[in-house]
Amino acid sequence: MEQDPGFIAAVEEAKKGLAEGGVPIGAALVSKDGKILGRGHNMRVQKGSAVLHAEMAALEDSGRLPGSAYEGATMYTTLSPCDMCTGACILYNVKRVVIGENKNFVGGEEYLLSRGREVVVLDNEECKEFMGAFIKEKPELWNEDIAV
Amino acid sequence: MEQDPGFIAAVEEAKKGLAEGGVPIGAALVSKDGKILGRGHNMRVQKGSAVLHAEMAALEDSGRLPGSAYEGATMYTTLSPCDMCTGACILYNVKRVVIGENKNFVGGEEYLLSRGREVVVLDNEECKEFMGAFIKEKPELWNEDIAV
Repeated sequence: MEQDPGFIAAVEEAKKGLAEGGVPIGAALVSKDGKILGRGHNMRVQKGSAVLHAEMAALEDSGRLPGSAYEGATMYTTLSPCDMCTGACILYNVKRVVIGENKNFVGGEEYLLSRGREVVVLDNEECKEFMGAFIKEKPELWNEDIAV
Repeated sequence: MEQDPGFIAAVEEAKKGLAEGGVPIGAALVSKDGKILGRGHNMRVQKGSAVLHAEMAALEDSGRLPGSAYEGATMYTTLSPCDMCTGACILYNVKRVVIGENKNFVGGEEYLLSRGREVVVLDNEECKEFMGAFIKEKPELWNEDIAV
């Protein structure tokens, strides 16, 4: 699953975010037939945005779609999704959330399961490394992003 | 509570959205000391946005803030918040969600309560009227907004 185009896109997005001086979290939304509908990364620094977390940016990049377009979709994300992104995945009927890692942060995984979604945690070494290094380097920015 | 500046702002925002041909839902985020931090309305039509529901637009309008700025805050919204907006209120530690009406749509009220938030439903006649009329007039747009 670490070789899925959606996961590769999510990691690429996280690295773009890091290179831009932002929060290095990336995501990609993939339809049930394997098409990448949208991809993006956290835009707190780049756009001063409080809502464009990575998963939200991927949904926004997907544009306006009918509800049917999301049926059976997978959200790939480099980090366990926060409560906001969890809720967005539920609203948009995302069937499966594939998570790079949940060592640096655990979000709404249990709630996703309780709402009938599949959750896969890859425990990906690279995701753990760049996120862990970012949190060590910019703890205030990270805390702001999760409203701590 | 229908005379709270936050609720009045939320209704004004919903009407702006309606006048723009959009989904008529408005919201305002108010700090514990009564300051309107941000306000906004659904931007699906106006910006082609999948993430800027009213509550999200109010959070975005509030800009980048430290987590402490949201402590004790109230989100006023003209309609019961969907799963995405519910999750956003939880992420940002919104203490209380004041809802214009929940006759036309019921969102994450139970989940908000289960996460320790206060929920107030005003059952406001005006909110019920403009939302009900909108759903009758543009059912496809409404279904798209809630991914049905």
